[in-house]
Amino acid sequence: MNNFEFQNPVKIIFGKGEIAKVANEIPSGHKVMVTYGGGSIKRNGVYDQVITALKGFDVVEFGGIEPNPRYETLMKAVEVVKNENVDFLLAVGGGSVIDGSKFISAAVYFEGDPWDMLSRGAKVLKAMPLGVVLTLPATGSEMNGGAVITKDATQEKYPFGSPLMMPRFSVLDPDVMRSLPERQIQNGIIDAFVHVTEQYLTYPVDSPIQDRFAEGILLTLIAEGPKFLADKNNYNTGANFMWAATMALNGLIGAGVPSDWATHMIGHELTALHEIDHARTLAIVLPGVMKHQQESKKEKILQYGERIWGITSGNDEERIDTAIRKTEAFFNQLEVATRLSDYGVPESTIEKIKDRFEKRPYKLGENSSIGAKEVAEILRLRL
Amino acid sequence: MNNFEFQNPVKIIFGKGEIAKVANEIPSGHKVMVTYGGGSIKRNGVYDQVITALKGFDVVEFGGIEPNPRYETLMKAVEVVKNENVDFLLAVGGGSVIDGSKFISAAVYFEGDPWDMLSRGAKVLKAMPLGVVLTLPATGSEMNGGAVITKDATQEKYPFGSPLMMPRFSVLDPDVMRSLPERQIQNGIIDAFVHVTEQYLTYPVDSPIQDRFAEGILLTLIAEGPKFLADKNNYNTGANFMWAATMALNGLIGAGVPSDWATHMIGHELTALHEIDHARTLAIVLPGVMKHQQESKKEKILQYGERIWGITSGNDEERIDTAIRKTEAFFNQLEVATRLSDYGVPESTIEKIKDRFEKRPYKLGENSSIGAKEVAEILRLRL
Repeated sequence: MNNFEFQNPVKIIFGKGEIAKVANEIPSGHKVMVTYGGGSIKRNGVYDQVITALKGFDVVEFGGIEPNPRYETLMKAVEVVKNENVDFLLAVGGGSVIDGSKFISAAVYFEGDPWDMLSRGAKVLKAMPLGVVLTLPATGSEMNGGAVITKDATQEKYPFGSPLMMPRFSVLDPDVMRSLPERQIQNGIIDAFVHVTEQYLTYPVDSPIQDRFAEGILLTLIAEGPKFLADKNNYNTGANFMWAATMALNGLIGAGVPSDWATHMIGHELTALHEIDHARTLAIVLPGVMKHQQESKKEKILQYGERIWGITSGNDEERIDTAIRKTEAFFNQLEVATRLSDYGVPESTIEKIKDRFEKRPYKLGENSSIGAKEVAEILRLRL
Repeated sequence: MNNFEFQNPVKIIFGKGEIAKVANEIPSGHKVMVTYGGGSIKRNGVYDQVITALKGFDVVEFGGIEPNPRYETLMKAVEVVKNENVDFLLAVGGGSVIDGSKFISAAVYFEGDPWDMLSRGAKVLKAMPLGVVLTLPATGSEMNGGAVITKDATQEKYPFGSPLMMPRFSVLDPDVMRSLPERQIQNGIIDAFVHVTEQYLTYPVDSPIQDRFAEGILLTLIAEGPKFLADKNNYNTGANFMWAATMALNGLIGAGVPSDWATHMIGHELTALHEIDHARTLAIVLPGVMKHQQESKKEKILQYGERIWGITSGNDEERIDTAIRKTEAFFNQLEVATRLSDYGVPESTIEKIKDRFEKRPYKLGENSSIGAKEVAEILRLRL
């Protein structure tokens, strides 16, 4: 395996009834801003649990953080933090609320335009402490220092990250998932699944621990995801899905191995241009990346086919095709469509995305071999 | 799965050539005590690498920490720390040196007799910061807050732990393992293996992530362990063994599931009375615990048999027996004997150990069902 550094100090508090513990995790005397999204937490009881738990703290609220959280919205939250002298953030929601809150935590202290942290890689030098109450397993943001933010004005969507933005703690109570819309559960399963493939379907570096862990997460998502969709009151199944999604992107399975992220980077453009749910862009793009990169990814796709889908017959190309077909069939089983045409994306979008990548100084993928031309080829496989 | 809390902030720095980085991890101005064991680090070049890396720091040394580190020895180190105003510990060694250094880190600040932390569960309230350069994968001590200490005067051996004793960082450079004696490698493989079984061979709580990760570690140890024993110059194999051993006991696979530890607690008595290597006591005891507890552990032993050893035929009892036989055969393949008689332990020892457990107010095992009588029955299975 490759040399690596790994450190993840996020405290996970997992299980039913655990939201009550948030107060133990926030030093007394802090002024807490509770951040959330469209308000579903007010309907499903999570908001009440959090406010009850925060009794004794001075609390302000900032709701309305949207899916694909917007720079423009978050900068309003930064103003509230400054005006109200907030000094602790508590994100109550899924990946968008957590990512948005990470941006707030760093933007508050950033000198200049905080968008520079995303568009120019300006370094995060300080961030406000952040806690999380997770309501939707998907992004893994509850146990890492990364975030993805969108700027409306320019239709841009970029990732950024810093260990300083890792949550101090994250409460994962699977009970909060009972009222989730199907669509968000479908998205969560696929998002977690593709987080794993980005760190697993590359080239072999003799890393059995990382491989077995990655495979364990995929097998769990495949077994538990559809079961949870069929019965959201199944606590154990929800718990296993939730823990799988967190483990998919907390740095562990990526330590010491190459990673790809081409599917994510291409998918971000589809979301930026067409507002397609992030996870659905991944379901569209991943089969294209696998097919287009089948030579360089051959050994890992064959291992994936055998260990995840039990594919043991056929020549290499047949086995790779079967593995891709099984992957797409899994997404379809979750009732998620996997073709650009399913989402009404016109062929002209491919040229637009190609233009965007032509302006960027880097290529995508674990071998940095996917440039603008290859991005267009991959997308054409997905019409 | 069960509710749990998990937090592990240890920074892992993994790979060849990484010992040079220790200086970046210790705040400047600190006075460092380098702790080590019998001096093998002076022969294999590790000592020189560490001292070179610490250039610019004020350094004192404390060598001679023995296998099964002794309270009596460690209290001398505590005196050195106090007299020399040491304020950072750097443990260079395997589990004994790391465990011993954890004891030192807490004993320095303990009011009263530090042995109370082990014999009476007195709480660790403060500990000196500790870094690690690992030379022998086995105990997982490099990424947890636990330690096991022996008191010569009373032939007692107890575990204790605190998050405060977790290393700030651990450097894992597989290159340092080339000169390890076979015996220590054999011990390390078995120690890591049994750390996993203690957290895996219990009763099912519907925890596929924890199960798959545990199985991934076992499969890795089974594949890589004997390969590394056959060729200590195989860097990749050593690296995989090393990372497997760390992952076996850093809290992750035990989060949310029951754990046993009867094999360890019984094994400690064999070490205390007969100085048998810790890992060898585990190889003796584990097959007995599996057999004796085959009813309560049935589902997990069957899963273990199938997923680890490919056992798919026979009735339950036959499959369990085959799983136990395969486990023992693996230890024997590593040239580790698995019977009390192989080590010259007389039957009278069983009564002695029974007496010791009769005086203790708790029973062992995930169901607290193994008392003194059952300990004796287990040991009798291993004559």
